[in-house]
Order: sequence, then C-alpha cells, then structure tokens
Amino acid sequence: MVAAGIQGLPVVKTENGDAPGPFLIVCEHASNNFPPAFGTLGLGPEARAAHIAWDPGALGVAQRLATNLHAPLVAAGISRLIYDLNRPPHSAGAMAARSETYDIPGNAALTPAERRRRTEAVYLPFHAALHAEIARQLAAGTPPVIVTVHSFTPVWFGKQRDVEFGIIHDADPALARAVLAEAKARTGLDCRLNEPYSVADEVTHTLRLQATPYGLANVMLEIRNDLIADAEAERAMADGLAPVLRAALAAISPKPAEKAAI
Amino acid sequence: MVAAGIQGLPVVKTENGDAPGPFLIVCEHASNNFPPAFGTLGLGPEARAAHIAWDPGALGVAQRLATNLHAPLVAAGISRLIYDLNRPPHSAGAMAARSETYDIPGNAALTPAERRRRTEAVYLPFHAALHAEIARQLAAGTPPVIVTVHSFTPVWFGKQRDVEFGIIHDADPALARAVLAEAKARTGLDCRLNEPYSVADEVTHTLRLQATPYGLANVMLEIRNDLIADAEAERAMADGLAPVLRAALAAISPKPAEKAAI
Repeated sequence: MVAAGIQGLPVVKTENGDAPGPFLIVCEHASNNFPPAFGTLGLGPEARAAHIAWDPGALGVAQRLATNLHAPLVAAGISRLIYDLNRPPHSAGAMAARSETYDIPGNAALTPAERRRRTEAVYLPFHAALHAEIARQLAAGTPPVIVTVHSFTPVWFGKQRDVEFGIIHDADPALARAVLAEAKARTGLDCRLNEPYSVADEVTHTLRLQATPYGLANVMLEIRNDLIADAEAERAMADGLAPVLRAALAAISPKPAEKAAI
Repeated sequence: MVAAGIQGLPVVKTENGDAPGPFLIVCEHASNNFPPAFGTLGLGPEARAAHIAWDPGALGVAQRLATNLHAPLVAAGISRLIYDLNRPPHSAGAMAARSETYDIPGNAALTPAERRRRTEAVYLPFHAALHAEIARQLAAGTPPVIVTVHSFTPVWFGKQRDVEFGIIHDADPALARAVLAEAKARTGLDCRLNEPYSVADEVTHTLRLQATPYGLANVMLEIRNDLIADAEAERAMADGLAPVLRAALAAISPKPAEKAAI
C-alpha cells in the first residue's frame, strides 16, 4: 500500500500489511527522495546523499527485520529535510534550516503557509498510515510492539563516535532496557542506552505520538551507519538484531503462569 | 468540512475550520445517529435517544462555545454505541456490550473483523481530522488549547448526582485546576475536579492521544445534562463557560514580562 499526499507523492510505504506481528517496524528517515513538488532545497547531490538527508542503511535493516519478524513496516518516502517525520510540526527540527555542518537554503525562511503545506503533505499522511496500522491491530486484540529503526553518522562535528548500537526510550524504558541486555549478550556491538541521542534531544516524537497513548511496548534503535554500508551488511545486522528483539520482548512479557494469576 | 468514512458516512464534522483559536473544541459524543451501515444495534427508539447513545446537549454547548471563542469544533456524527471515540480500539468500552442499565444486543458478540470495520470507519477518520486540525495549527506556530465537551446523566444506576459541572484532567492538571477556580468564582454551579469521572475511568483517551504528545494545554468538561436540556439552556451554559475558559487560560499563560525573561 502506498498512501498519497499532494500530487500523488509517495510519502509513506507500508509493507507486510497483513503480517501477524506483534512487532511493527517504523522507518521515518528511510528515504533521501526530493520530489519536484519540494525541489532540492538548494542542496547539491553530495548533501542530498549525506546523513543529513536520511538515515543511510536504515531502510534495508528495517525491511529485513520486518521480513525476519513477520512484521508490518511503515517507511517514509521523502527526505527528512523536507519534513522530519520524527519531529512535531512546531519543532524547528521538523524542517531544519541547519543540520550538523550543512546549511539548508530551502528551509532558511519558511513561511507559515509552507510549513503547513509540508505538514499536510508529508507529516499527516505518514502518521495517519502508522496510526491506522496500530489501531487495526488494537481492534483485532493484538497490540503491536513499536520499533523505530534509525542510523547515525560515525563522525559528528568532526568527532568519532564509539557507540555502535544505541537503544533509546521515551516514557517507558522496559523494552529498551531488555533490548540492551539481549544485545550485549548476543552481539559483539558496543551497545549503549540513550546514546548517541536521548529523549532530551527530542528524538522520540514517534514513540510519544503513536505508542505511549496506547501503552504499547516501544523502542528506538540507532545503528552506526558505517556498519550497514551495503546490502550485505544491512542484512547481517538485521539477522543479528531480530533474535535480540524477540528475546527482549519475551523477557518483558508475562509468563503464562503469571498471566493466569492476574 | 465533512470527512467521510465508509459509504460517505458523516463520521466527523469540523466547523469554524479557519477560526483563530487558540481553543479547539472537541465533542466526541455529539450525535445519536445510527446510520444504516451499522443498524440500530437492536435498540429501540427510547434507548437510542438516551444518554447511553450520546451526550445530550453537549453539541449545542460545544457549538456555542466555538462561536463565542472563535474556535474550530471537531464533533462526531455517529452514536458512541457504534464506536465511542473517547476510547481506544482495544477497550471494551469502545463498542460497549452494556452501558449503565442497558444491554446493547448489537455489540454483544462482536468479531475482530467487525471491531476493525468500526475502527476504520469511525475512530480513524475522527481522530485523523482532529489530528490534522492540531497539526495545522502547530505548523502555523499557534498551538491549540484542547477542550472536550461532554454531558452526564443526573441519575446513574438510580442514584442522584449532585455535581453539576465536572472538570477532568489527564497527565497535565494545569488548565483543569484553573477552570475549576474560575468556574467556582464566576458561576453558581456545583463544580468539582475529576467528578463524576476521572482518568481512572479511562475517559481521557482523546486528551492522551491528541494533546499530551504535543504538550498542549487541555481539559475535559462534563456538564449535567438536565442543565442543558434545551437550546436556550445550552446557549446560556456556553455563554457562562466561555469567559471561564478565557480566564483560566489567561491564568496559566506566562505574563509578557515572564515571557521576556525566559
């Protein structure tokens, strides 16, 4: 299913829509697509391919995770520089005028009308599609577990980052803590909680908007993008993380005996 | 604007869409409409007109409040017994099989498919329309203040209720407390906080879904329905409550000097 915004724009792609779950994979920064309706924002090809425009490798990992976990996937079809789907419409970062060391000329002096146009064309259809997927599963009595998949750049403002796998939570840390424990036990990655970003950096909007109101288990994953630099690496990373997620969910789920006692 | 669900069903009505705000009025239980796509759920005319099917008087108060406050209004177009828009899709109360002293035969043995159909036809379009209204205002830099308008029956399970005006909050009590103080000072009503319902009764879903993720000021109002039994009474109630809401918002808003100091 492809939901359309203005001019038939593919702002969101849903795959495995009838997959049984319980995981629901989300990839807000999947794409560095700059469709004609928005233009290139004054950026050259190098900037449009850089980590400021999208999360390189995240879509490949998310797709393979969705396959391995038999999970639906909701992924963006447009660059985060046009609208960052993990930010609310009043956030400066939703349509950032500057990202790391790059200026974004096309976002430098946005009018309220243009902010509203992008919100209606990109933000609303994406979150409506994700909300619909969640609501359908809730109606069927199968609450989904929300996993958002991101990547980060190994060098940030000239400084090397050691963390390889970041696990980030919002109000409910349960699944994130379990993922951290399982990832440390099952992978050789340098795993850290709430690094390289945390809730203080306002990176948990999707979790807050879509998971918290329903009390759904949720976690945000951040993978250093040099570890998922080609299709084979993406695949290997997802194949390593799928059992981590399964084990983490099992660890926070009530055992059958406990369920019976409730 | 009328958003359509299945078969052109008017599941939500938005009025004053271009009103300046900052208030945004919501009326989830505005209607006792039972369209043919869902039937009468086995209920006779008396039950379909009773408080179990809708909040009598709430729409009239909400419309007049919206007019007085120059606020947009998002109101339901379908009975809460088909889908209670103030409940999440996995809640038993979303499609209640029993409400107070009434059985609802058409909700007695709902299949997952029927729960999903109603969720898609009623819940999703209503909350998408409300979300769109909120997101557009956020994009324009004018965060709305969410006010949901409800009514309650004066006699509940045979017992008389003394409270006349209930003010209910979810996680953020600031506006509710201010409304309580102003309503006590400005009206002759018996005003109480978190009566006749509270967050423990799972009545704050709309606030939690739509206001909390954005940090918007919010409150749920409950008016005893014998006080708004005709158009004149609805009008008088709204004319009394509009200045209460304005004063309450002013009381929790930073003063210009405080704003400058931030």
